[in-house]
Amino acid sequence: MTSAETGPKWAYEDFTAGLSIPLGPKHVTAAEIIEFASEFDAQPMHLDEEAGRASILGGLSASGWHTCAMFMRMLADAFILDSTSQGAPGVDYVRWKRPVLAGDTLDGHVTVLSRRLSRSRPDLGLVTMEATLANQRDETVFEFRNTIMFLARGARR
Amino acid sequence: MTSAETGPKWAYEDFTAGLSIPLGPKHVTAAEIIEFASEFDAQPMHLDEEAGRASILGGLSASGWHTCAMFMRMLADAFILDSTSQGAPGVDYVRWKRPVLAGDTLDGHVTVLSRRLSRSRPDLGLVTMEATLANQRDETVFEFRNTIMFLARGARR
Repeated sequence: MTSAETGPKWAYEDFTAGLSIPLGPKHVTAAEIIEFASEFDAQPMHLDEEAGRASILGGLSASGWHTCAMFMRMLADAFILDSTSQGAPGVDYVRWKRPVLAGDTLDGHVTVLSRRLSRSRPDLGLVTMEATLANQRDETVFEFRNTIMFLARGARR
Repeated sequence: MTSAETGPKWAYEDFTAGLSIPLGPKHVTAAEIIEFASEFDAQPMHLDEEAGRASILGGLSASGWHTCAMFMRMLADAFILDSTSQGAPGVDYVRWKRPVLAGDTLDGHVTVLSRRLSRSRPDLGLVTMEATLANQRDETVFEFRNTIMFLARGARR
C-alpha cells in the first residue's frame, strides 16, 4: 500500500480534529466467534448458541475482546496500514454496549478529537480518536477512545 | 470444572476487596504474535522481527489487542471459567506500558477493588478489578481495570 516514493498516505498532519473515517462493514460469523473464544475466552456464551440464548447476552455472542480485535482490523484496513502509525500507549475506555451476535454486520466510524506533537520527539504526533460500531439494526454495540502515535510527514522512519 | 452439585467455585460473594489472584505464566511465541497480527493488526512491527527492531517497539512485538486477548485467557484459566461470570460492560482503561516481545513470559495478578449488587437485579453483582502483567525482567507491560458481572451464589442461572 505504501509507495516508496511518497510514503504512507496517512501521516500525523492528516488527522485534523473532526475528521471522520468510516469503518467496516464486517460480517461476524458463528465460526469465527467460536474460534476466537476457544483460544482466548472460552465462556459458554461465546462457544455455544444454546448457552448464549440462556445467558443475558441472548445468543451466541462474540467475546468483547474479539469485538476489540475486529475493530482493530477495521482500523487497520481503513487507514492504519497505510499510515505512519507507531502504535498506541493504551486505551482510554471500551464500552461493550450490546452483544455482538453471530450473523451481525458491524460498521461505524472513527473521529479525530484532538492532536498534539510529542514534547520529547517533535517528529512524532499523538492523535486522540473516538470510535463507535453499530449492528445492522443501527444499535450501538461498541464505543472506544484512545490515542495513537503517528510520525509527522517526512520524519525519518 | 463446574460440579452439578455445588455450582461454580467462584460467585459474587467470593470477590472480597483486596483479594489478589495470580495470573499466568504465559510464554509468548513469535508464531502466535504473527498469527494474531495477520488476522487483526497487520502492522509491520507485529509481523516481522526486522521491522520490529526498526520500530520504537524494539523487536517483533505483540499487537496490544493480542496482549489483551492473552490477558483474557489468563483470567479465564485463573477463575472466570469456574465462576458465575455474566460478562462485562466494558473496560475502564488499558495501558500498554512496554512492548510484549517474542520470547517474553508474562505473569501478574488481578486484585479486587470493590463490589456492589446490581440495583435492578439483586442476584447479580458487579466486581471492579485491576490487573497488571509483567515480563520475565519484572517490567510492567500491561495495566487494566474493569468491572465484571457475577451471579450471587445460589442465584437461578
